[in-house]
Amino acid sequence: MEGGAGVAGAVIDLNADLGEGFGRWTLTDDEALLSVVTSANVACGFHAGDPSTMRRVCALAAERGVRIGAQVSYRDLAGFGRRAMDVPPEELADEIAYQIGALQVFARAAGSRVSYVKPHGALYNRVVQDNEQAEAVVSGVLRAGAVCDGPLPLLGLPGSRLLAVAEGVGLPVVAEAFADRAYTRAGTLVPRREPDAVVHDPEQVIARAVGIARDGTVTAASGEQIGIEARSLCVHGDTPGAAQLAWRVRGALASAGVRVEAFT
Amino acid sequence: MEGGAGVAGAVIDLNADLGEGFGRWTLTDDEALLSVVTSANVACGFHAGDPSTMRRVCALAAERGVRIGAQVSYRDLAGFGRRAMDVPPEELADEIAYQIGALQVFARAAGSRVSYVKPHGALYNRVVQDNEQAEAVVSGVLRAGAVCDGPLPLLGLPGSRLLAVAEGVGLPVVAEAFADRAYTRAGTLVPRREPDAVVHDPEQVIARAVGIARDGTVTAASGEQIGIEARSLCVHGDTPGAAQLAWRVRGALASAGVRVEAFT
Amino acid sequence: MEGGAGVAGAVIDLNADLGEGFGRWTLTDDEALLSVVTSANVACGFHAGDPSTMRRVCALAAERGVRIGAQVSYRDLAGFGRRAMDVPPEELADEIAYQIGALQVFARAAGSRVSYVKPHGALYNRVVQDNEQAEAVVSGVLRAGAVCDGPLPLLGLPGSRLLAVAEGVGLPVVAEAFADRAYTRAGTLVPRREPDAVVHDPEQVIARAVGIARDGTVTAASGEQIGIEARSLCVHGDTPGAAQLAWRVRGALASAGVRVEAFT
Amino acid sequence: MEGGAGVAGAVIDLNADLGEGFGRWTLTDDEALLSVVTSANVACGFHAGDPSTMRRVCALAAERGVRIGAQVSYRDLAGFGRRAMDVPPEELADEIAYQIGALQVFARAAGSRVSYVKPHGALYNRVVQDNEQAEAVVSGVLRAGAVCDGPLPLLGLPGSRLLAVAEGVGLPVVAEAFADRAYTRAGTLVPRREPDAVVHDPEQVIARAVGIARDGTVTAASGEQIGIEARSLCVHGDTPGAAQLAWRVRGALASAGVRVEAFT
Repeated sequence: MEGGAGVAGAVIDLNADLGEGFGRWTLTDDEALLSVVTSANVACGFHAGDPSTMRRVCALAAERGVRIGAQVSYRDLAGFGRRAMDVPPEELADEIAYQIGALQVFARAAGSRVSYVKPHGALYNRVVQDNEQAEAVVSGVLRAGAVCDGPLPLLGLPGSRLLAVAEGVGLPVVAEAFADRAYTRAGTLVPRREPDAVVHDPEQVIARAVGIARDGTVTAASGEQIGIEARSLCVHGDTPGAAQLAWRVRGALASAGVRVEAFT
Repeated sequence: MEGGAGVAGAVIDLNADLGEGFGRWTLTDDEALLSVVTSANVACGFHAGDPSTMRRVCALAAERGVRIGAQVSYRDLAGFGRRAMDVPPEELADEIAYQIGALQVFARAAGSRVSYVKPHGALYNRVVQDNEQAEAVVSGVLRAGAVCDGPLPLLGLPGSRLLAVAEGVGLPVVAEAFADRAYTRAGTLVPRREPDAVVHDPEQVIARAVGIARDGTVTAASGEQIGIEARSLCVHGDTPGAAQLAWRVRGALASAGVRVEAFT
Repeated sequence: MEGGAGVAGAVIDLNADLGEGFGRWTLTDDEALLSVVTSANVACGFHAGDPSTMRRVCALAAERGVRIGAQVSYRDLAGFGRRAMDVPPEELADEIAYQIGALQVFARAAGSRVSYVKPHGALYNRVVQDNEQAEAVVSGVLRAGAVCDGPLPLLGLPGSRLLAVAEGVGLPVVAEAFADRAYTRAGTLVPRREPDAVVHDPEQVIARAVGIARDGTVTAASGEQIGIEARSLCVHGDTPGAAQLAWRVRGALASAGVRVEAFT
Repeated sequence: MEGGAGVAGAVIDLNADLGEGFGRWTLTDDEALLSVVTSANVACGFHAGDPSTMRRVCALAAERGVRIGAQVSYRDLAGFGRRAMDVPPEELADEIAYQIGALQVFARAAGSRVSYVKPHGALYNRVVQDNEQAEAVVSGVLRAGAVCDGPLPLLGLPGSRLLAVAEGVGLPVVAEAFADRAYTRAGTLVPRREPDAVVHDPEQVIARAVGIARDGTVTAASGEQIGIEARSLCVHGDTPGAAQLAWRVRGALASAGVRVEAFT
């Protein structure tokens, strides 16, 4: 697993979910976020992301040197991919491959390429522990390797089944952390249904981002400092003021001597 | 335009629409047809064709040496792509590119590749005369060139705006004919809403197939022999007995000295 | 046709498109608009409008005494119902009936009922001149009469085939006008693709609303005053500031002595 | 719970899933099955069932005196409603109500009405044990009561949370059994993933149907006779020969002195 935090010359990637509109509807401020982040998780049409939005986001990302990732999801426009689904593994693998292939067209047409894969929403949470679906996602990524320059890295939660399975078959993995989510003493995310699962205070979010990226540590909900390994920080992009907060995080990282750079 | 009919050493391609199921539903007898045709128009998910069906059809086509084409459509599962839609050109181009990219994953994963594009249903009929949508389809194909080995040929109706626009930008085009459809004296198809638009008698279908492929002629609805240029014959695959009739057509072509071979 | 404008004691209905989100996406400021309008055109799931949004909008409309109408559409989430479709008449009629039935559940559950039908987007425009689709919409409304207290009125453009066909079978019809759209000398709408098709200046919109509602006249694009018959004014709700403008229109109507009241 | 089996004058309802096509695709032999069964579980558009199919099935059911039920499902056309989904309860309740309302239009237009509700596929299995989703389904049915003559009965598995929750709020419930499924000693269904979960031999299916309907007993997989309470027998309609087997079951029931009659 590519690490890098907590050392002299610390370096971190900033990723955000982009292109999460659909037809007439928009959600993420793609233009603003693409001037902040180094990696764009582009929706591929299954939870959001119509073809024209995919094209526009890829073109803009390519223009700004932002890396393009496939943000793959369950097929669930009505639920925005936030409802866990018992998709049979073979079907899921094929749905993942389909989405990556569709995005690759627009990435390539923009002179770039799909560089990594990150599951979205309920699928992201499911593959933390569900080995069968984790294997299906990895199978899908391997199948899609046929239209990529080689096997794509997976971006996900450290300790997840997804990253373990991916490493097991030799895929590169990239661990990510969240500056605006509470962590347990064991280093896992406090579930969203619990109070204080989300850190709302911008100053705290910024301080935590720096702590994670520069020192490899974060304050757990229990009050202790814990170690946290992350090569990428996820920045949320679907709330008002999201792009502005992302800019402040990026500025604070720079001031703290952390290089903001996409993973390779 | 690649021709080839009506000459000594006549050669013809047989194409059929395949993979036109969706999830629990099946329509085309993919397995049987893939043992007859030389080109498979594979549904890409917009009018039919779930990812797992796309994978299976591509795998089988690759195994049997059948060429894979993207059968692109309006986004219309409920109407099976048979309802003309006023899709804005930019959107349509992106939808076409999306479908080709998605199919390419499964074609490549099977060790083959998408070799051509054929519009489906209402889109096929629309781009016979609608220049704007014809240009949009061609734009989509050009965009998708980024994930193909180069610009893909378009398979369509001779005299259509689609083939004219494609030729205008330097794309290869392949003219197709229908052995089971009536033609007007001017060489256009008799619209389906008219009586006798479809030839139902198998013997007639077979005779017409041979006439088109070997002699480059067909008897028009008016009774005259007319010239018809075609490098590919479309074989319908969604009716009972379709595969059997296709086999008989193929046998008759062989007996008549016509080579059945994919276009290049 | 129920008229009522241009006379002493002028009365006008204000209608707006509401509930046009889908799942995670929102568009219209339903809460604000429901405090201004007298008729709510509620999206029924085909171009927008998930079941939970439909329930919430119906509940709020019922609470505020706003009349509920079914805003029926082509089945086209990706295109927001703005792409004309050649849907066979029988299919279209059934799709209309389906949408009305689905909305009726939430209207009734809120203690109200579906009181009228208004086609959305491309369907609205199509049935101005397309007699076949106009008849299909009317057939759908008649079928849905089985779950309504009787045949529902149709809200649409005066002079449209839709209203003519509806009147022909005895359905009540309600003519609507647009204060923010330019009219030709003949009283038809200037097509959106032409410059100046939309009136952007709020003061003008307000003045035109009063002119239509109180005097039954509007200034055509050619500069002449023309007569215009309308029992309802359509207020747009999908732009920032829409609700505020609607409030100003309502205030101006009141000051001009026009009663703002739903049609019956 | 309405029982009735295992007594002198035994009476049983036969129900089947119908209208499970979508647009161009068909699955169930609706015409044949509607001449055998007494209750038709009509798909409502979420896992299958386009509006025109719903209208046709309702019209035919009404004509033949077959009772119409709403076969409600997760929103999952691609998975045919067979993939369990973590739909939030409020959303699920609204989706259920939406489906019932849509079907009611066609039932009423045919001179009949929706008489009961039966969950489909993964939802059916989920509400056997999932209390939250069982409550959501019941809430949806209660909401839809506003367009029905009163609260609708629920058709489901005896011992399921669904029937328990429904009874708890005063809804009528109807227990059903499967002549072609293996039962455990405890009276629950042997899961489909286990071998011998399904009884394929027609003679056995017929004998079991009679045993259930007349005697209220069935032979469990363990070999013991167990008691089984059912007012309805589910007949599968999506396999070749399904209608024929259903006819034989119906004939055998008649010969055994069991009246085949819809529940009330």
